[in-house]
Amino acid sequence: MPGVSRRGFLAGAAGAAGAAGAAWTSMLLAGCDDAPAGEESNSAPNNEPLTGAAVAFDGATQAGIRTPTQAHLNLAAFNLRDGVDAAGVRRLMRLWTEDARALASGRNPLSSLEPEMVEWPANLTITCGFGPRVFALAAPDAAPAWLGGIPAMRRDALRPEWGQSDLVLQICADDPVMCAWALRHMTRAGVDYARIAWLQQGFMNAYGSIPKGRTPRNLFGQVDGTVNPSTDDDFAQQVFNPDGSSSLVVRRIAMDLDGWERLDRASREQVVGRRLDDGAPLTGHDEHDAPDLSARDEFGLPVIDPNSHMARAMPPADHPEQRFLRRPYNYNLPPAPGSESLSDAGLIFLAYQKDPEAQFTPVLRRLMEADRLNEWTTHIGSAVYWLPPGTAQPGTAQPGASQERGGGDAYWGETVLAGGRG
Amino acid sequence: MPGVSRRGFLAGAAGAAGAAGAAWTSMLLAGCDDAPAGEESNSAPNNEPLTGAAVAFDGATQAGIRTPTQAHLNLAAFNLRDGVDAAGVRRLMRLWTEDARALASGRNPLSSLEPEMVEWPANLTITCGFGPRVFALAAPDAAPAWLGGIPAMRRDALRPEWGQSDLVLQICADDPVMCAWALRHMTRAGVDYARIAWLQQGFMNAYGSIPKGRTPRNLFGQVDGTVNPSTDDDFAQQVFNPDGSSSLVVRRIAMDLDGWERLDRASREQVVGRRLDDGAPLTGHDEHDAPDLSARDEFGLPVIDPNSHMARAMPPADHPEQRFLRRPYNYNLPPAPGSESLSDAGLIFLAYQKDPEAQFTPVLRRLMEADRLNEWTTHIGSAVYWLPPGTAQPGTAQPGASQERGGGDAYWGETVLAGGRG
Ligand code: HEM
Ligand code: HEM
Repeated sequence: MPGVSRRGFLAGAAGAAGAAGAAWTSMLLAGCDDAPAGEESNSAPNNEPLTGAAVAFDGATQAGIRTPTQAHLNLAAFNLRDGVDAAGVRRLMRLWTEDARALASGRNPLSSLEPEMVEWPANLTITCGFGPRVFALAAPDAAPAWLGGIPAMRRDALRPEWGQSDLVLQICADDPVMCAWALRHMTRAGVDYARIAWLQQGFMNAYGSIPKGRTPRNLFGQVDGTVNPSTDDDFAQQVFNPDGSSSLVVRRIAMDLDGWERLDRASREQVVGRRLDDGAPLTGHDEHDAPDLSARDEFGLPVIDPNSHMARAMPPADHPEQRFLRRPYNYNLPPAPGSESLSDAGLIFLAYQKDPEAQFTPVLRRLMEADRLNEWTTHIGSAVYWLPPGTAQPGTAQPGASQERGGGDAYWGETVLAGGRG
Repeated sequence: MPGVSRRGFLAGAAGAAGAAGAAWTSMLLAGCDDAPAGEESNSAPNNEPLTGAAVAFDGATQAGIRTPTQAHLNLAAFNLRDGVDAAGVRRLMRLWTEDARALASGRNPLSSLEPEMVEWPANLTITCGFGPRVFALAAPDAAPAWLGGIPAMRRDALRPEWGQSDLVLQICADDPVMCAWALRHMTRAGVDYARIAWLQQGFMNAYGSIPKGRTPRNLFGQVDGTVNPSTDDDFAQQVFNPDGSSSLVVRRIAMDLDGWERLDRASREQVVGRRLDDGAPLTGHDEHDAPDLSARDEFGLPVIDPNSHMARAMPPADHPEQRFLRRPYNYNLPPAPGSESLSDAGLIFLAYQKDPEAQFTPVLRRLMEADRLNEWTTHIGSAVYWLPPGTAQPGTAQPGASQERGGGDAYWGETVLAGGRG
C-alpha cells in the first residue's frame, strides 16, 4: 500500500512570499508522496505550523481517506445534467482531476482568475466518488453490485434531499476559507456537466486545537474515532482494494442533544460502553484497551451492556471482516424556525470500506435492530459511492481517447471510464 | 484603554493533562489581563501553538472586539421570552456572564456536565449586546438614541428573519467545535429567559493558515480589513466609550460571486480602488499606503474612481469621525434548491463604534447612494446593539440588588441594569 502516507509540512515556506511558497509546496509534495507509509494515524490534528501544510494529491489511493481528519468538510453531491454522456463524464473527470490536483498543491487552476485564494492549501484534499448513474452511463459492466444502495432499515427516517446522487466531491481542509473556495472552484469548473444536489458542511477540531495524538470528540461529548484502521495492513484489509479503489457510505444522522443532555454521565457511558472522560471501555483503563464483553459486575450483570453502541458495532468473532474506516464530521445548524429545540445538530457519518455489503451493512443492521444510542439518533440521509483509485499512475486510456487527455496524468475513474463506450 | 491586549498563549499547557491544563489556563489568564496594551493588531491569525490559547474574559472592555479575528463566528440573536422582566434580565445577565467567563478560561460552567468539551478554549470570546427591548424593560432612561435602528436605505433588501433582536451573543473561537459548544451551552443556560431568533455562522482564515501579519481575504478574493483602528488611541477615538461600552452594527450582505467572477481583474480592482494581489491602493505600492484620490492617469482621469468602494467609504476631510472597526466574517451556504447560482455566499459585516449614527450611518448612506460594489452586493439583514463595558470592575449594583449577585464579579450591563426598576 505505497503512497498513502503523504502529508507534507512545509514549514520552510511559511515565511516565503506567496508565489514562491506555492512553488515550494508542489516541489516538496512531489517528494512527500514517496514518504514511508504508516506514519499517519487518523486521529488528532498536528501541532506543526499550518501555513504551507499540504497533502499530496496523486497516489495509489485517493487522498482524503487515510488523511488525518481535517477541520472542515464540504461534502457536495452532484447530479449530471441532462444530455451528459460517457464522453462528457470523461471530460468532467479530466478537468476536475486536473483542477483538484492544482488546488491541493497551491497552484492556480487554469480556469481561475484568483491565484491568491489558493496559495495556502491547508491540507486540502478533494476526493471524488461515483454513484450508480455514472456507471450506467459510462461503464455499465464495471458497476460494483453494492452500488445499488444501502438497504432500507426499519428505523430509517431518510429525507429525499439527502439522498443518492450521481457524483460526490468530498472537500476537506484545515482552513474554512480554503475549503469554501475549493468547493466554489470545483462547482464552477464542472458547471456545464453537473449541478449541486446537496451540500453537507461539517467540522471537527481545528488543526492544533487539541493536543497532538488526542482523539477528537463529537457533540455528544464522546471520544469518537478510537477503533479505526491504523496500519498499512489494516487499510489493505478493510479499506483499499488492490487497485486502490474504495467506497464511501454517507449517513446523515441527527443527534438529539437536548435529550442526551438530560441523561446523567453514568447512563451516557452505559449507552456507548465507554467512559466519557477518556474514552476507555468500561472494562478497561486506557482508551485503546480491548473491551471485555464477558466481564460481570458484583451483581453478575455485564459491565458492558450487550446493547451498548460499542458492543453492537463490534465485529462478531466469526465475522472479522465487519470493520471499516470512520471519518465523521459534526454539523451544528440553527434550530428550525418555531422549534423549541436548542439546535439542529448531528453527525455526517462517513465510512470507507472495500465492500459496503460485506463490511458496513451488517453493522448498520445490528445497530438499527438494537443500539441504546438509537434513542438519541435518527438517520436522515444515506448515499453510497465508489471511490476510484488514486491518480498516481499514467492512465490506461485507449488510443482513441488519448487525444482528450491533459498533461498525461491519470484522471479520476480512468480505469473504468476509459474502457466505456461513447 | 487598559486591558484590551490580553490574548494569552499557554504553550506550556499543551502537553499537560486536561484538568491541569485548564487550571493553568485560568491562572495564566489572570496575569495576561495586565499585559501591556496595543500589542494586538486586528489582522491575521497567529502562528503560536493553538492548544491552550485563550483570551481573558474580564477587562475594561469586552473581549471579542479588539481581539484579532478568530476563525469561527456563531452570532446568535435572542429574544426575551414573554413575561421576563427587569429582574429576569438581570438574572440572565448574571448567569450568562458567569458561564461565559468560565468557558473562555477553560473552566466548566456550574450547570454543565461536560468538562471535557471546554478544556481548550481556542481563543474563545463571548461578547454580549443589548437591543432596544432590554432597555425598554430594564433601563428605559439609559437607552442610547441610536438604538432606534439603522435608517432604511433605498437599496436595502432586508429580510425579517435577519432583523433586530433583544439580545445578541457574538461567539468567536479558533476551533469550530469549541465555537459550537459555547453556543450550545449559552443557549441552554439562558433557555428559561430567551430563545434564539437567528443564528449567523461565519468563518475567516483558520488560525495560522496564512502567514502571520497578512490581512485575510473575503470570498471576492479581496484583502479585507486593511483600514482599521490599531492603536490604543484609535480604539479610544473610534470604538470604546470612556466607560468601556461600544456598539455593534450587524449587516448581512449577500455577495453575487457568480457575477463578480465574470469581471476581469482590472475591473475588479477599479470597483474597490485597490489591487487584488496585495491590497495596495491603485495609487500606491504597499497595502498600507495612503490612497491619493486626486491622482490622475495619462488621460486626466482619476486613478481611483470616486465611486469606488474605498473612495466612498473613506471619511471625508471634514468628517474624520466617520470611522469604525470592521470585523467581517464570510458565509458560504448551499444555493437555494432549484437555483442556478453556484452558492449562497456573503459577508456577515460587523462594525463597532461609539456612536453608529455619527460614525457608521453616514458611511453606509454614501455607499448605498453610489458604490460600484453595490452591483454585486445586497444587504439582507440589519441589527444594532449596545455593547456593555467589560466586566473587570466589581459592579455598582445598588444595595437592594446585591443579594442576587454571584461571586462578586461584574456582569454584562450591570452599570445600566443595576439602576433599573423591577
Ligand atoms: C450519531 C451517531 C453515532 C455516534 C454518536 C457514534 C459514536 C461512537 C462512539 C463514541 C464510539 C466509541 C469510540 C470509537 O471507537 O470511536 C463508536 C464506535 C463505533 N461506531 Fe459509532 N456512532 C454513531 C453511529 C455509528 C454508525 C451509523 C455506525 C455504523 C453503521 C457506527 C459504527 C461504529 C463502529 C464500527 C465503532 C467501533 C466499534 C468497536 O469495534 O469498538 N457508529 N461510535
Ligand atoms: C460585501 C460587502 C463588502 C465588501 C466585499 C467590502 C470590501 C472592502 C474592501 C476590499 C475594502 C478595502 C480594504 C480594507 O480597508 O479593508 C473595504 C474597505 C472599507 N469598507 Fe468595505 N466592504 C463591504 C461592505 C462595507 C460596508 C457595508 C461598509 C460600511 C457601511 C464598509 C465600509 C468600509 C470602510 C470604512 C472601508 C475602509 C475605507 C478606507 O478608509 O480606506 N464596507 N471594504
